[in-house]
Amino acid sequence: MKQIDINCDMGESYGNFIVGNDVAIFPHITSTNIACGMHAGDPYHIQKTIEMAIAQGVQIGAHPGYPDLQGFGRRVIPMTTEELSACIKYQVAALKGMVESAGGQLKYVKPHGALYNEMAKNEKEASTVVKAIKSIDPTLMIMGLAGSHMKEIVEAEGMTFIAESFTDRRYEADGKLMSRAKENSVIHNAEEAVNQVLSVVNNGFTETLNGEKVELKAHSFCIHGDNPQAVEILQAIKSGLEENGITQKAFSTP
Amino acid sequence: MKQIDINCDMGESYGNFIVGNDVAIFPHITSTNIACGMHAGDPYHIQKTIEMAIAQGVQIGAHPGYPDLQGFGRRVIPMTTEELSACIKYQVAALKGMVESAGGQLKYVKPHGALYNEMAKNEKEASTVVKAIKSIDPTLMIMGLAGSHMKEIVEAEGMTFIAESFTDRRYEADGKLMSRAKENSVIHNAEEAVNQVLSVVNNGFTETLNGEKVELKAHSFCIHGDNPQAVEILQAIKSGLEENGITQKAFSTP
Amino acid sequence: MKQIDINCDMGESYGNFIVGNDVAIFPHITSTNIACGMHAGDPYHIQKTIEMAIAQGVQIGAHPGYPDLQGFGRRVIPMTTEELSACIKYQVAALKGMVESAGGQLKYVKPHGALYNEMAKNEKEASTVVKAIKSIDPTLMIMGLAGSHMKEIVEAEGMTFIAESFTDRRYEADGKLMSRAKENSVIHNAEEAVNQVLSVVNNGFTETLNGEKVELKAHSFCIHGDNPQAVEILQAIKSGLEENGITQKAFSTP
Amino acid sequence: MKQIDINCDMGESYGNFIVGNDVAIFPHITSTNIACGMHAGDPYHIQKTIEMAIAQGVQIGAHPGYPDLQGFGRRVIPMTTEELSACIKYQVAALKGMVESAGGQLKYVKPHGALYNEMAKNEKEASTVVKAIKSIDPTLMIMGLAGSHMKEIVEAEGMTFIAESFTDRRYEADGKLMSRAKENSVIHNAEEAVNQVLSVVNNGFTETLNGEKVELKAHSFCIHGDNPQAVEILQAIKSGLEENGITQKAFSTP
Repeated sequence: MKQIDINCDMGESYGNFIVGNDVAIFPHITSTNIACGMHAGDPYHIQKTIEMAIAQGVQIGAHPGYPDLQGFGRRVIPMTTEELSACIKYQVAALKGMVESAGGQLKYVKPHGALYNEMAKNEKEASTVVKAIKSIDPTLMIMGLAGSHMKEIVEAEGMTFIAESFTDRRYEADGKLMSRAKENSVIHNAEEAVNQVLSVVNNGFTETLNGEKVELKAHSFCIHGDNPQAVEILQAIKSGLEENGITQKAFSTP
Repeated sequence: MKQIDINCDMGESYGNFIVGNDVAIFPHITSTNIACGMHAGDPYHIQKTIEMAIAQGVQIGAHPGYPDLQGFGRRVIPMTTEELSACIKYQVAALKGMVESAGGQLKYVKPHGALYNEMAKNEKEASTVVKAIKSIDPTLMIMGLAGSHMKEIVEAEGMTFIAESFTDRRYEADGKLMSRAKENSVIHNAEEAVNQVLSVVNNGFTETLNGEKVELKAHSFCIHGDNPQAVEILQAIKSGLEENGITQKAFSTP
Repeated sequence: MKQIDINCDMGESYGNFIVGNDVAIFPHITSTNIACGMHAGDPYHIQKTIEMAIAQGVQIGAHPGYPDLQGFGRRVIPMTTEELSACIKYQVAALKGMVESAGGQLKYVKPHGALYNEMAKNEKEASTVVKAIKSIDPTLMIMGLAGSHMKEIVEAEGMTFIAESFTDRRYEADGKLMSRAKENSVIHNAEEAVNQVLSVVNNGFTETLNGEKVELKAHSFCIHGDNPQAVEILQAIKSGLEENGITQKAFSTP
Repeated sequence: MKQIDINCDMGESYGNFIVGNDVAIFPHITSTNIACGMHAGDPYHIQKTIEMAIAQGVQIGAHPGYPDLQGFGRRVIPMTTEELSACIKYQVAALKGMVESAGGQLKYVKPHGALYNEMAKNEKEASTVVKAIKSIDPTLMIMGLAGSHMKEIVEAEGMTFIAESFTDRRYEADGKLMSRAKENSVIHNAEEAVNQVLSVVNNGFTETLNGEKVELKAHSFCIHGDNPQAVEILQAIKSGLEENGITQKAFSTP
């Protein structure tokens, strides 16, 4: 029986600055990527998010980013290899310890924003981050862009790669995400999001805005919590999966 | 045979802002309290300090503080119990994971600055922090002010308390540290520092500026890395201990 | 003819962290207190808010707070007199220069959150802040809690005091604001907010939850932008003022 | 009679993190570039530095940088044109207001670190910063790298350009600074620093490590406060200038 995971970035609030709609989204997802305090998230919000995830049986991943609160981790911050490595170890270790102290288990790491994109493009940066994660816990799975060199880099370290696609972002013909700067790059229509998920799960491809086929293999689909239609899209995906006999379930191994 | 530990706060540099003289001090201490990134310390400097400690066989403790870089953790930041608890878990977990990933072991926690002082005065705050540390690792020892209620609070959680005295700070007759705001509260003279250490180890007391006896029991003595005479004092203590047949050694149990 | 000003804290977004609903609120207010980058607000959002205020003819005040982004300026941060003074000069100067460079004029200063409350209680802190503002521009008016010692402290420096009351907060019988920690301290009902405004403007008093009269004199009423009913309340106030022949207008002198 | 200015970056301490040796350096310089709180400097240290400058008759410039405390402004932070513009206005306005409130006058702006270098290479970034400064005060002079396109960009805005050379950095044959990453790029020898200054003032050129001539015209020479030989070099320059009949004096117009 076919199955798919839906993940969402969470715990990104910082003090009085509230981001996303975590409480409403939690019941609809099977994996949560929790901010680690550098691009977003403070310890209090991280702790609350961990507790919600455990209470609702949602699988937990760490979501480390560049140390850049003002840029929300969406800017490339120039760092030496040693600085980047230490920065990743710090974040993953903090989250892992907090999850375990709450009685849960950290299962995977999904890098955030500009770091995620840099890793998909830049082999040295990707390798630095993967090795840093491995040094904290070699059993952690690593989530990255489906179709990128991340698979090879993660597996070269003897670790498990989780391919991620997006429910609410459009793709270019070469398999890359359409830049957020381009019109219609974000999907706000629930039906289109469902179609993209079903097409990838059933057929192994989606379509660009121009109707070109893009091959995509996904172990997990991302929904963006700051998409105002997030809950609506998630409900539509749930129905769509049920109607097609596909189970929504957290990935365990690829 | 008598033995005593000497500890120093380290890893407090932040980016280009360099604090202390860690490289020169490391050979003279047996335990190091490493900053955890909230009052001071960035992941890179934390990582470097961990590596130095392991390479030199110095016992490692976590040194969490209030989240207050501008105040260097020396101001009381009002936090709810939940915020404080999460903030401590985050810092201790980060350090523990980084130490273990470098092949070392985190042995204890010493809270920093205003947090250390608040805990010595305020039972609720002390208990919150101790429970947060326990939730990360109940085998961690907790270092606090000798003669304070910290001993009871730590032991009530079934954890091990390490009593700390100071090599370079003077005491009031009631056993409290003289405020840094008062004249002569910091000892800059190596001989006086040695005398304080020897008197506490051999006799169980030191003397105030007025010559009053103050009972003090210590498992570890702190030297302040920002004391310009730190290395000189440490060398004098080493000689003083040797002459008196006292071994300088990291505490393992009290 | 009677007139009253309505003010709102704005420009409190920070990078990707969006606070309040400034665009929707701007058409309904006559004065805006713009964050200065320490408790909230980054230069980009400050600039945008200044431009909106000038375009819509809304009077501009600076809204400095404690340097505490994580606490959103709602915690008392211990600072020396010199530190607090410099911190206020910095923020007010930054805002004044930016407003003038955009072709506008900074007219007043309203301290934020915990600083506002500390000043209403603590004469030394109030005096420090008022003198710091004066040193940047002695013609700036200073807005503070109606009925507090702020009037005397501001006028003692030869400056103009603007008494502020609140549209959406309840008062205690002694004239203090009900703590946000207490139930029903925030008014979410538009009609009750209108009644409070009209009662203060027409009669010089409002009522506590228990129906006790509280004398209040106000040159300006605050609406909180993070109150989800803010726009609704503002529209109701507008109607209420019109029906009662009261003009909504920015204060110029008290 | 020939004259030259010596400038130094100052006010870069942040809370307990002390940078440089401002007190010792002040008597030897004629212009000071004061940090503005984004790459370094907090309001208290900025205020103290302004007061020292005024007391010692040292000309004051603003020293804005990228908003990057951890990177000390030495990393390029990706910013939109609008973000960069607002960030510069904020910093220059803050410093200008604080200087004037202390009874002084802000005379010029020298961008810091990575921003300085980006401006020397990137016309759009340079123009954005120059226009932002102009919007705060069009009479401010702007200091930048001698021999770069900065002269044209500043003068195109009708503003005054101050060409800067370095006392303690070596040059490449093309007039660029040798990268700090290269060996011997920083001059620690006082005599060599003096020779570079005298050669530029008297002859209009200096020499590379290989002895090639590099044409350089300078209105001001920079000394780095974190160069451990800074005071020694400054004293040697003073003697060298006196022996050669050159006056050390703040620039007023180029």
